[in-house]
Amino acid sequence: MNILAFGEVMLRFTVADKMMLEQNDNLRVTTVGTGVNLLSSLAHFGYNTSILTALPDNPIGKKAAADLRKLGISDKKLVYQGKSMGSFFVELGHGARPERVTYQDRLSSSFCETDVADYDFEKALSGIDIVHICGISLSLTESTRNAALKLAKEAHERNKIVCFDFNYRMSLNEDNTHEVMKKRYQEILQYVDVLFGSKRDLTDLLDYQETNETKLYEKFTHDYKINFFAGSKRVYRDGKKYFEGFLFHHDKIFESAPRELDILDRIGSGDAFASGVITGLLEKWDFVDTLEFAIANSVLAQASMNDTPIFEKQDVFNYIDSEGKNDLLR
Amino acid sequence: MNILAFGEVMLRFTVADKMMLEQNDNLRVTTVGTGVNLLSSLAHFGYNTSILTALPDNPIGKKAAADLRKLGISDKKLVYQGKSMGSFFVELGHGARPERVTYQDRLSSSFCETDVADYDFEKALSGIDIVHICGISLSLTESTRNAALKLAKEAHERNKIVCFDFNYRMSLNEDNTHEVMKKRYQEILQYVDVLFGSKRDLTDLLDYQETNETKLYEKFTHDYKINFFAGSKRVYRDGKKYFEGFLFHHDKIFESAPRELDILDRIGSGDAFASGVITGLLEKWDFVDTLEFAIANSVLAQASMNDTPIFEKQDVFNYIDSEGKNDLLR
Amino acid sequence: MNILAFGEVMLRFTVADKMMLEQNDNLRVTTVGTGVNLLSSLAHFGYNTSILTALPDNPIGKKAAADLRKLGISDKKLVYQGKSMGSFFVELGHGARPERVTYQDRLSSSFCETDVADYDFEKALSGIDIVHICGISLSLTESTRNAALKLAKEAHERNKIVCFDFNYRMSLNEDNTHEVMKKRYQEILQYVDVLFGSKRDLTDLLDYQETNETKLYEKFTHDYKINFFAGSKRVYRDGKKYFEGFLFHHDKIFESAPRELDILDRIGSGDAFASGVITGLLEKWDFVDTLEFAIANSVLAQASMNDTPIFEKQDVFNYIDSEGKNDLLR
Amino acid sequence: MNILAFGEVMLRFTVADKMMLEQNDNLRVTTVGTGVNLLSSLAHFGYNTSILTALPDNPIGKKAAADLRKLGISDKKLVYQGKSMGSFFVELGHGARPERVTYQDRLSSSFCETDVADYDFEKALSGIDIVHICGISLSLTESTRNAALKLAKEAHERNKIVCFDFNYRMSLNEDNTHEVMKKRYQEILQYVDVLFGSKRDLTDLLDYQETNETKLYEKFTHDYKINFFAGSKRVYRDGKKYFEGFLFHHDKIFESAPRELDILDRIGSGDAFASGVITGLLEKWDFVDTLEFAIANSVLAQASMNDTPIFEKQDVFNYIDSEGKNDLLR
Amino acid sequence: MNILAFGEVMLRFTVADKMMLEQNDNLRVTTVGTGVNLLSSLAHFGYNTSILTALPDNPIGKKAAADLRKLGISDKKLVYQGKSMGSFFVELGHGARPERVTYQDRLSSSFCETDVADYDFEKALSGIDIVHICGISLSLTESTRNAALKLAKEAHERNKIVCFDFNYRMSLNEDNTHEVMKKRYQEILQYVDVLFGSKRDLTDLLDYQETNETKLYEKFTHDYKINFFAGSKRVYRDGKKYFEGFLFHHDKIFESAPRELDILDRIGSGDAFASGVITGLLEKWDFVDTLEFAIANSVLAQASMNDTPIFEKQDVFNYIDSEGKNDLLR
Amino acid sequence: MNILAFGEVMLRFTVADKMMLEQNDNLRVTTVGTGVNLLSSLAHFGYNTSILTALPDNPIGKKAAADLRKLGISDKKLVYQGKSMGSFFVELGHGARPERVTYQDRLSSSFCETDVADYDFEKALSGIDIVHICGISLSLTESTRNAALKLAKEAHERNKIVCFDFNYRMSLNEDNTHEVMKKRYQEILQYVDVLFGSKRDLTDLLDYQETNETKLYEKFTHDYKINFFAGSKRVYRDGKKYFEGFLFHHDKIFESAPRELDILDRIGSGDAFASGVITGLLEKWDFVDTLEFAIANSVLAQASMNDTPIFEKQDVFNYIDSEGKNDLLR
Repeated sequence: MNILAFGEVMLRFTVADKMMLEQNDNLRVTTVGTGVNLLSSLAHFGYNTSILTALPDNPIGKKAAADLRKLGISDKKLVYQGKSMGSFFVELGHGARPERVTYQDRLSSSFCETDVADYDFEKALSGIDIVHICGISLSLTESTRNAALKLAKEAHERNKIVCFDFNYRMSLNEDNTHEVMKKRYQEILQYVDVLFGSKRDLTDLLDYQETNETKLYEKFTHDYKINFFAGSKRVYRDGKKYFEGFLFHHDKIFESAPRELDILDRIGSGDAFASGVITGLLEKWDFVDTLEFAIANSVLAQASMNDTPIFEKQDVFNYIDSEGKNDLLR
Repeated sequence: MNILAFGEVMLRFTVADKMMLEQNDNLRVTTVGTGVNLLSSLAHFGYNTSILTALPDNPIGKKAAADLRKLGISDKKLVYQGKSMGSFFVELGHGARPERVTYQDRLSSSFCETDVADYDFEKALSGIDIVHICGISLSLTESTRNAALKLAKEAHERNKIVCFDFNYRMSLNEDNTHEVMKKRYQEILQYVDVLFGSKRDLTDLLDYQETNETKLYEKFTHDYKINFFAGSKRVYRDGKKYFEGFLFHHDKIFESAPRELDILDRIGSGDAFASGVITGLLEKWDFVDTLEFAIANSVLAQASMNDTPIFEKQDVFNYIDSEGKNDLLR
Repeated sequence: MNILAFGEVMLRFTVADKMMLEQNDNLRVTTVGTGVNLLSSLAHFGYNTSILTALPDNPIGKKAAADLRKLGISDKKLVYQGKSMGSFFVELGHGARPERVTYQDRLSSSFCETDVADYDFEKALSGIDIVHICGISLSLTESTRNAALKLAKEAHERNKIVCFDFNYRMSLNEDNTHEVMKKRYQEILQYVDVLFGSKRDLTDLLDYQETNETKLYEKFTHDYKINFFAGSKRVYRDGKKYFEGFLFHHDKIFESAPRELDILDRIGSGDAFASGVITGLLEKWDFVDTLEFAIANSVLAQASMNDTPIFEKQDVFNYIDSEGKNDLLR
Repeated sequence: MNILAFGEVMLRFTVADKMMLEQNDNLRVTTVGTGVNLLSSLAHFGYNTSILTALPDNPIGKKAAADLRKLGISDKKLVYQGKSMGSFFVELGHGARPERVTYQDRLSSSFCETDVADYDFEKALSGIDIVHICGISLSLTESTRNAALKLAKEAHERNKIVCFDFNYRMSLNEDNTHEVMKKRYQEILQYVDVLFGSKRDLTDLLDYQETNETKLYEKFTHDYKINFFAGSKRVYRDGKKYFEGFLFHHDKIFESAPRELDILDRIGSGDAFASGVITGLLEKWDFVDTLEFAIANSVLAQASMNDTPIFEKQDVFNYIDSEGKNDLLR
Repeated sequence: MNILAFGEVMLRFTVADKMMLEQNDNLRVTTVGTGVNLLSSLAHFGYNTSILTALPDNPIGKKAAADLRKLGISDKKLVYQGKSMGSFFVELGHGARPERVTYQDRLSSSFCETDVADYDFEKALSGIDIVHICGISLSLTESTRNAALKLAKEAHERNKIVCFDFNYRMSLNEDNTHEVMKKRYQEILQYVDVLFGSKRDLTDLLDYQETNETKLYEKFTHDYKINFFAGSKRVYRDGKKYFEGFLFHHDKIFESAPRELDILDRIGSGDAFASGVITGLLEKWDFVDTLEFAIANSVLAQASMNDTPIFEKQDVFNYIDSEGKNDLLR
Repeated sequence: MNILAFGEVMLRFTVADKMMLEQNDNLRVTTVGTGVNLLSSLAHFGYNTSILTALPDNPIGKKAAADLRKLGISDKKLVYQGKSMGSFFVELGHGARPERVTYQDRLSSSFCETDVADYDFEKALSGIDIVHICGISLSLTESTRNAALKLAKEAHERNKIVCFDFNYRMSLNEDNTHEVMKKRYQEILQYVDVLFGSKRDLTDLLDYQETNETKLYEKFTHDYKINFFAGSKRVYRDGKKYFEGFLFHHDKIFESAPRELDILDRIGSGDAFASGVITGLLEKWDFVDTLEFAIANSVLAQASMNDTPIFEKQDVFNYIDSEGKNDLLR
């Protein structure tokens, strides 16, 4: 099974020792991004993965490519062009103090400046079974938007399974109207088979009015011929945090049991969930097992440093089997 | 608003990686102290702050001054004199294992050996609205005691707001009788407008007999013409830790709601509370809001490494607004 | 009181920053092992300790010897021979993600290859009151097995108190039949006074059928003339983890109250318990106090980095006295 | 003496342990830039310094401001605006392997996007004796160009001493013609009193034809009414590296003795030289002493980590006096 | 061009901060080995590389595989089997204090215990142009010896270019007689096209008597039909260290100019030289240029941390062009 | 051979990464001192060593004791008393930038405040062959002075070999007149057998007028019945640094060949020399070999981090044998 993801690769600078940036000059740099996180997880589950993106042709881009390879992602389809990578700083949280994420400019990155014409989609898709596209591309630049749309369309036409993640962020769209963004998402959704998002994406971004969740998802997936629609979220009940998810297929919502969270680093939880769902679909597990696997993968990821999950299937099964008693074993 | 603090600046050596000193040679050195912690917090809340203290005229003192500036505290009123700084080691705790603090000798520090005559209080108070004095000065040396008393008196005579923190430690007063210490505190309290302490300071140190808390505080604040009396503490209930505080003004005790604690580093909790209270008073917030802000600032500080709070007002408000669900947001 | 332990000394490589080995190249190396952990704890409780083992005669072995000395364990009885030390990697866990331990080959270590004839047991036992032997020696190589048995026998004949820890691991005995292993344990048990193990060791390894715990222990200790039989374990109740232990003497089981666990690093919990029990026996504390002390020592050890406990008696008493409110004190 | 610098503040990411970016994820972040380096050095020589620049209004900008204060540079004139800071990675060199610097995009930084109208030059110049402008502003964006020119003009009109550093980089001007850049430099030079640059700046950028160095400098400084023209460079002779400089005043070139270099981190050598020259001019030292001081400050800076010099005058004098035997003293 | 190497992959533990193992518990672990070093360098020169070896099927082996991918080496031909990796400790040197290397046992590693039958040589060689075999395999175990010989033979029969590196170490052959080792090398040499070694390998191991170097090499390469014979070494002249190499082809010795060394970490110098020579042969550069390139690659590698060269061709050319003045450029 | 040293044990805080204290908060703490350095070196040469000093009875003192044990020094004779240890900061140098040492107050340390009556010299000397006393004790406090003198006298009377190191520091004696210090040294010298110092100690401190070195030493050693007088120093010739030493016995000066220095950390060079000389005398090597060994030990120590030498005899011999070509060997 060969999986291709298209999306931005970013540098993450994590401040050391759970300190704040103003307190500590020691950083750890890692190579992350929705596509990276998803593919790393899938590679560790045993699939062949490769990424389609652009990196600068300098030591920074070469370092990122080396990191991608280390994560199990092929760098053969990388475009080296431009001079920058988007980046963000992470200050890990503790208790009352939340994890804090601060972005540096990302619009001048190699990825954001690489034009649709600079990619060879035909070659990129050759031998690929599944394509994953991150919705952030629709917000960034005209180049990333065009490339995402074209890739979705071409993959769809070639009968590849197209996965798409809403990943809609208001903060990235200060200059875009609601209508403009809605149209962009509507355009790409027609090529999508497996979709990751939330109820709010449907109501707030796509303006669906239906309030009954099942009917809403039924109508929406019917409108766009979406095969699977899934999503996850953190919830807070009685002073405890949980992680839970859903998977909608045909006319039915499947819901996971919630799992308690003890967060070390929360970033990438949605990507870990998505890779779990894709794995369940590929393996044709039943949907409840798929959700349990996806939630467990994400809970493990949130109990780990860095965005990027590197658990093998057996690690996830062990956690599920242990029923939270992992630490009791010698 | 210009705030001056007088007190000892110390070096804190924190053992890395939550290990004990016997286990790990890697330390992190930071510049701390009651005045430092308070001023840093107030500077990050937007006030002009400066510290009056003595540092050695060598690379150690210069490093401390650089750290003070970094925290937003002016070093223009520093006296460079003597050769040492007081210091202590911190071994962070975890679960059953408490955080452990061990002091090195502090009586031979530049601060402890600098005589009252070496300070120019008139110049130090020029342009200042509020003065904060840490009670530890009454315990250390004759020099620090005299300086603290003179500064309190001169500030009071110039109609500055004088804040004072009991900070009474038995361990620093093995050679002083109860009567001697009581007299010293009684002397300085007559100049104080805003006081930080606890009920026990009044009963055990000042020998008040009154057991009804409201009556006690009423009598005490009346005796010394204290405008505001406030205090905070950690409490343990049903296996959980909380932080809570009070503020007494005129004839009324205001009490905060307790907030649950998940401690990363507990030192400096009282200083974070005090800077929150001073901010509320300066901003003329109502007393309940002031207490909530002060407790929240302290809870955040205890969820952070190092003594010294560096939260902005908005950070504290965000925490209050999140009702503990900070980690749920992406 | 002079205590000698016989057993393997290993290098432990702990991945830094709670990360997984695939994520981080920074390691911390420490010198550990059942005997090391036990003796370090006993040395910090005030007893004279020394270890009988073999280390390579190179910078690795010298480093290990230096670490032993640092822990308070005499290196005078070390044999320098061979070229390797056994080692394992530790990836610390968090929440849902368990601590993970991966062993490198240990059968070619200096310890495993040192023959019984290379030890001078007579000299090693001179001046010694108590001997501790770790059961893992029965699994490793013929050399370690012979040495353990001979030492137990000679110590017993010289009226030393012989302590033994089952420490039976299936994973180390893939090539040994149940019968072979049973016989080895049966042989050594006849020399043992103080035994550490669990009910399962008696039923699964030694094939006892009795299900009533008191009767089982009574029969077993009678069969082998064991004076004390003790054990500890982690348990999981209502979503919380606890640590608890028992001590059997003559015809009675004493059981500790369970203590809640907040684990930083779980390895070595049994060794910390054993050193606590031995201390209580040496000090002739009553058995309930002994168990409380042993459990507390282990809970503190699990709240600390590294296998090896370095708490003094007063640290353990303080924890018991604080009733979990350690962090509340300033 | 109050000194203001205008220029870009950047984040520098230095790879730890002299390793290459592809080898090591541990970075150290510092706040640097021509203005930062110069002002830090001047602040440590005892002058009041402040910087005029723009930083993002987020934790990154706040961290940079804290670092500036730590270096002794006032942050009172900072403009908080925009969302990014320019940044670069440094891989330290060793022997045959050169130090390698890789820039991320800097054109979308807060500094590059802040318009001339966003600065209040009148307020910025109030109380200032000397202004330093870095020539890189002429290359970056129209905003930085306009701001630099306007500041130079206004400072000149108010009779401030205007210092300027050519700092001309081909790599930043791929889209600018030679003529365009020449004109920009010609425009600003008419306001300059103290200039830092090299012979090549005059011949290659400004198209001077004169080959005799004295005549060239005479003609050039006469053309633009430059009072002092100074420059420094690394040279390589007989397998050794040296650092040397010149100072031209009126009709005379003064040249320093070369000093041997043992480089730890070469970046910022020109800034350290410039701060030394400015100090000598302010203190009215003779020109040979001034050059010796400036070269020594730069040699010390190149023997230190990070761009930014933090030596006091006495440190520089000690080095000059020691004649390279610094290490011999106990 | 597709290159396969066969050989041991090892864990290297480097003590941090140039300290000795007894001084510092902080280590950095990297994945190295003759094949790893060579392939990493060749991958960074632009060739496709993959390694044939065995790694344990556990987190240690997975980490090593991730590191290999990061270095640009394909992990598709890895065999996962056994439980251990060979390892060694490195204490970096300085001045008079030499770099010190201490090996742990390597004979029980997955590589050493993997039998010739466990490798699928036919598949491993498919699509491969060049095979590199490290001579250490002839010393380790019967399994590694048989595998090395079989691979050499099969590659030779399939007309692959076979490279071989003597890498003869007395210390690994305490149990082997001179005659046994000689025979093993004689056997493999008949399949070799490109050979790395030294004069001493011919005289001391293979018992050649000829003292004239040219005649010696002529005779030797004729005996075994070796196409290219090359070697490098560190030499010491007049208090300075140099690195130099030779390349023998047909009847002629080509010798490099010596290059001065400033060593940061000397391990892997021969592997860096070999990858340079192979590159020159592949690119059909003339032999003098090839030697200059190979020596330069090795000098850069010795000026870098870790065994494994990661320089691109352009990095090597830049160094050659700079004539040692790399640090002079801004 | 059993060796006892008397002297101050100090904490050394070394700033990480060759940075200055103002630049970096990461420190490494080590336990050092003249006695510590000397004994560690002698312990690594194979002798039994123990230290007589006072440490605080708290986690700081316990950590120091653990470090002493690690270095091979017995902690059985330690007095636990008082609350502090003396300390100093080290900023490592590079090239033009010298290593910088800054002391914190040491007069209030446990050592400085422990009275002569608190030591049991009889017990301390039991079983001891050689005693080493560091001259700094004569400068610190009356307590340290009295203890040093009493120990010297008692050791002398019991026919122990008494070693003494002048270690005279002006900076520690601002309050003492030349005459007072001279008298103290004169008093102790009458008990000394092996003395470490320099010509200047004799002329400047003891007021000897003789200028001919041989005659000076002859007269001096005759006056005080000194058996051996030795010293070492760093010298600077033709831009290079060297280390060299002398040993005077009876009527003859033996001088070492100078060895070139490449300093990583220069502190403790004299202690490494002294331990080498003592070793040579104990082993009855001829004086030239003794000096060569002592100088080599010191050169190695200066090429290592931290004050404290941990080289074995064979390490020193290897260095001598390699003639500086250590790095050439694989």
